[in-house]
Amino acid sequence: MKVIKTIQEMQAWSEEMRRTKRIGFVPTMGYLHEGHLSLVRKARELGDVVVVSIFVNPMQFGPREDLATYPRDFIRDAELLEKEKTDIIFYPDTQEMYPQGYTTIIQVKGLENYLCGKTRTGHFIGVATVVAKLFNIVKPHVAVFGQKDYQQLKIIERMVKDLNMDVEIVAYPTVREADGLAMSSRNTYLNQEERKKALLIYASIRAIEALFKQGERRAATLKEKAHEILGSQPGVDIEYVSICDAETLEEVDEIDTRGLLAIACRVGETRLIDNSILTEDL
Amino acid sequence: MKVIKTIQEMQAWSEEMRRTKRIGFVPTMGYLHEGHLSLVRKARELGDVVVVSIFVNPMQFGPREDLATYPRDFIRDAELLEKEKTDIIFYPDTQEMYPQGYTTIIQVKGLENYLCGKTRTGHFIGVATVVAKLFNIVKPHVAVFGQKDYQQLKIIERMVKDLNMDVEIVAYPTVREADGLAMSSRNTYLNQEERKKALLIYASIRAIEALFKQGERRAATLKEKAHEILGSQPGVDIEYVSICDAETLEEVDEIDTRGLLAIACRVGETRLIDNSILTEDL
Repeated sequence: MKVIKTIQEMQAWSEEMRRTKRIGFVPTMGYLHEGHLSLVRKARELGDVVVVSIFVNPMQFGPREDLATYPRDFIRDAELLEKEKTDIIFYPDTQEMYPQGYTTIIQVKGLENYLCGKTRTGHFIGVATVVAKLFNIVKPHVAVFGQKDYQQLKIIERMVKDLNMDVEIVAYPTVREADGLAMSSRNTYLNQEERKKALLIYASIRAIEALFKQGERRAATLKEKAHEILGSQPGVDIEYVSICDAETLEEVDEIDTRGLLAIACRVGETRLIDNSILTEDL
Repeated sequence: MKVIKTIQEMQAWSEEMRRTKRIGFVPTMGYLHEGHLSLVRKARELGDVVVVSIFVNPMQFGPREDLATYPRDFIRDAELLEKEKTDIIFYPDTQEMYPQGYTTIIQVKGLENYLCGKTRTGHFIGVATVVAKLFNIVKPHVAVFGQKDYQQLKIIERMVKDLNMDVEIVAYPTVREADGLAMSSRNTYLNQEERKKALLIYASIRAIEALFKQGERRAATLKEKAHEILGSQPGVDIEYVSICDAETLEEVDEIDTRGLLAIACRVGETRLIDNSILTEDL
């Protein structure tokens, strides 16, 4: 395993490698957990060589968000990636990615207006822009993204299609702790009490999935169930519970055959998200 | 020479070609003139194979601009490109480039606010976006742009740098008619009388260059000369005469060692632009 820190070296490696090998890629912000490692395993399955990037992207954090405190542990990350037989860790610093005079943005209009985009202004511009940069640097044939960040996934799929980026986007299901909490680097912010309360999110999802299986299709009824469960304990502040079209992310009143349930809330100071695709074959 | 109309075929050709050859690229909107052909020759000099795209990009036209009437003559263009030993003409239709559901834009902030960007709202978003798409489709090693569209050139250079696109941008000097008029597909709009009046643009540029050589560095004095010349005949409406920093495009009061003179005006209904870099070694 090799650690590459400059764009020039990464591009040269990838350009050479592309001639004969299929490059699998997993972009991350580090502080890796089993969710990330599942993506790496998927990338290894789909590619001949695997590149993982670790970059905490300032452009996707709002001014009142947790850029400064976002957890980082490169040595541990590198050990985990070594075990997964990662070929390259691309590990640039902020100056390398956003040198002085930087000014270009990519905006995926429409999709960014819903769900997390409503409160996290500019977040998805930051995500789309850094992913485009990383694709141009790593030149992957295939890139794997977690379904846990569902809106991010849809925005990247759209950007790749719209801008004719020659890379295949593969979605990987959310990986959960034994008790159901969706894995996230931000779970580390939770104290013991908050950690318990955070389980209400998955409890809501399971309850709504059960209602859906019983035939309930009305969004209001489904959402009410989540509000009931999430509201059952103090210290869980709902940002949104959304039932929406799984492709356009527009709110629906009633699910036809397929919809997205997406939840964002704050447990203490920690913002957590989770989701589930509601389909007939659930 | 081959004409390719689909993105998929173009990408496959380029991906294969990149392994062994250097790809030179010239993006155009067609209706080719000697200016374009000079870019093609330059691309041939810098690459082993040459791709020229012909696509009148709706995204870069404003609602009251000349998209519908923009001159087109594919057969003539193809003959000219054949003579220049072009390998591939990439000739997609609008549906291929912007299928239903298209929504992504690229914005190079800052640079787009000056010169033509002031009146042509969204124009440079359209330019940056289509050029990024074409780069992802054609995968060139080197792309050649005319200096006549100076702001476009600077915006593309900035986008390529910011988004880490692995393509070299080469600028080529403005090609002029025998009497000095900068070549442009839009010159075809001019009637005989307008064609004569259009010469005032280059006359202004030459006069300002002469003043600059004599040591004049004050922007106001230089601009006054252009207003005097362009205003000497009715039917020439000045949109701007700008003396600005050649990199940031910000207006300057006085040129230090290097500046850009840029002019846009309407002659009758036709909008024409021209420019000159004012440097000590002019």
